[in-house]
Amino acid sequence: MKTAITQILGIEKPIFQGGMAWIADARLAAAVSNAGGLGLISSINAGTRAVREEIRKARELTRKPFGVNIMLAAPNAADIAALVVEEGIGIVTTGAGSPAPYMEAWKAAGIRVIPVVASVAYAIKMQELGATAVIAEGAESGGHVGDTHTMALVPQVVDAVSIPVLAAGGIFDGRGAAAAFMLGACGVQVGTRFLSAEECCVHPVYKERLIKASDIGTMVTGKSLGDAVRSLKTPFTKQFAKMEAQGIPADEIRAFGTGSLRKAVFEGDLSGGSFLAGEVAGMVTRIEPAAAIVEDIIGGAEKLLQNPGVSF
Amino acid sequence: MKTAITQILGIEKPIFQGGMAWIADARLAAAVSNAGGLGLISSINAGTRAVREEIRKARELTRKPFGVNIMLAAPNAADIAALVVEEGIGIVTTGAGSPAPYMEAWKAAGIRVIPVVASVAYAIKMQELGATAVIAEGAESGGHVGDTHTMALVPQVVDAVSIPVLAAGGIFDGRGAAAAFMLGACGVQVGTRFLSAEECCVHPVYKERLIKASDIGTMVTGKSLGDAVRSLKTPFTKQFAKMEAQGIPADEIRAFGTGSLRKAVFEGDLSGGSFLAGEVAGMVTRIEPAAAIVEDIIGGAEKLLQNPGVSF
Repeated sequence: MKTAITQILGIEKPIFQGGMAWIADARLAAAVSNAGGLGLISSINAGTRAVREEIRKARELTRKPFGVNIMLAAPNAADIAALVVEEGIGIVTTGAGSPAPYMEAWKAAGIRVIPVVASVAYAIKMQELGATAVIAEGAESGGHVGDTHTMALVPQVVDAVSIPVLAAGGIFDGRGAAAAFMLGACGVQVGTRFLSAEECCVHPVYKERLIKASDIGTMVTGKSLGDAVRSLKTPFTKQFAKMEAQGIPADEIRAFGTGSLRKAVFEGDLSGGSFLAGEVAGMVTRIEPAAAIVEDIIGGAEKLLQNPGVSF
Repeated sequence: MKTAITQILGIEKPIFQGGMAWIADARLAAAVSNAGGLGLISSINAGTRAVREEIRKARELTRKPFGVNIMLAAPNAADIAALVVEEGIGIVTTGAGSPAPYMEAWKAAGIRVIPVVASVAYAIKMQELGATAVIAEGAESGGHVGDTHTMALVPQVVDAVSIPVLAAGGIFDGRGAAAAFMLGACGVQVGTRFLSAEECCVHPVYKERLIKASDIGTMVTGKSLGDAVRSLKTPFTKQFAKMEAQGIPADEIRAFGTGSLRKAVFEGDLSGGSFLAGEVAGMVTRIEPAAAIVEDIIGGAEKLLQNPGVSF
């Protein structure tokens, strides 16, 4: 499938793997890139040195393009911003903040910058900064979420900018990807489904809970703290929501949440862990190789777009 | 465009107009039906007698099929349930409750029953009750909302039932409709965009506010009351949300909200009115005839599905 984004980045298939904190490592990113998509390594890992190691490891595992996702609100953002230049990374996706302080250095190094955006205003701002494309992420997605959802967000972003737009949030299979193309996207970013990849490092309990989740299996917490996050409904998220409803001081709630993603990813701890996941968690039924996931999504979308099953 | 739902109902275009309380009247329903879609008259109106009058008026305005949307939680539900049989209505959509008590009488009268559902479990229940189809409504929509959004909800409902599924929530133009078809829907229900129809009775201020709304122009209130509703951000909704955050007793908040939809629809009252609208409010740019809206959505979807703009 050829779209604006496959041509700009030199990838075979218009699919990015989400740059999931503590999860998106060399093994997963390389598997996605080897399957023709764009793998991403997260900047949120066991320190900046670990990110460099993952990049080098990914280079051993694939000769195809992959990128680094930089969480700009994190304390190590400036270090990672320099690191991607040093390591000769060609593609950077960004989230949780503005890449403005780093754009000049990145552009000088020939890096393609593709920010994740949750609103039209932010998409326009990113275009003005020189972004190559934007990923319009609907609040169906797992992790940090905005207010608007994919069906409504993507066409509004497409209408507002002239750079290519990818869609994220609510995309599980060929149906979601084909829908994203109809909304005007030239590619998709998928997070939740890659959590169930064989090559994904999350704890077996994390994968089990994804497989067990229903269509109403996720919830958003943290809105009252200005930090809305979607995750699987677990004893932890219910307790978190209860603390918010009870008006417990923000500092106390934040302390309760500290380290919760790591507890989910590495320990599968249901009472202390935050199992970030999007609304499509209910569609996960099995663990499979990343390449099978890429093929199901993009191959499925191709089939649907070639034969939409509606007669005129 | 021919789909399962156009064939079952004998309509030309696979588009339903939402059965918006206090808004969906004979004039709007007839305009949509005359354009080839399915117009709906709301059961929430100035009393049961007024609903009968609207049905009779619609019969004068169109010879094409139209239906009645019944809000089952309303005190007049049983009266309306009997009225649609008496009036020989062929198609009923339902919301906010179970149609179980009325199914036998409706089926005996040959009425096609199409409930609005917000979850897989409810869709399955409606299929078991003998529904002709279901409308899977994502929480992007205006008015009462569930937890899951269109991109994730529709394919999960499609996988769970064997009856036809329509999609609602987040559908504004041909892009949204084409996306809905890709997700497996055989038709769409559109509410927010029809608020901007020339034939729609809402106060001019309501239409103006829709035109001015941005992509982040709506919000959900009432979640803490177990009654989540999406509407335009106004002084009223901000006050409502503040009362919820402050933990003000539910009865007091409900009293503040009583009659607020009518104040929006008939008076355009920004401090006391609840301007129900979906996330696509940001896409409304003008007032136009219902027929132009139907043509833009379905004609636009046809064009996109015939030429998806992706090369293989």
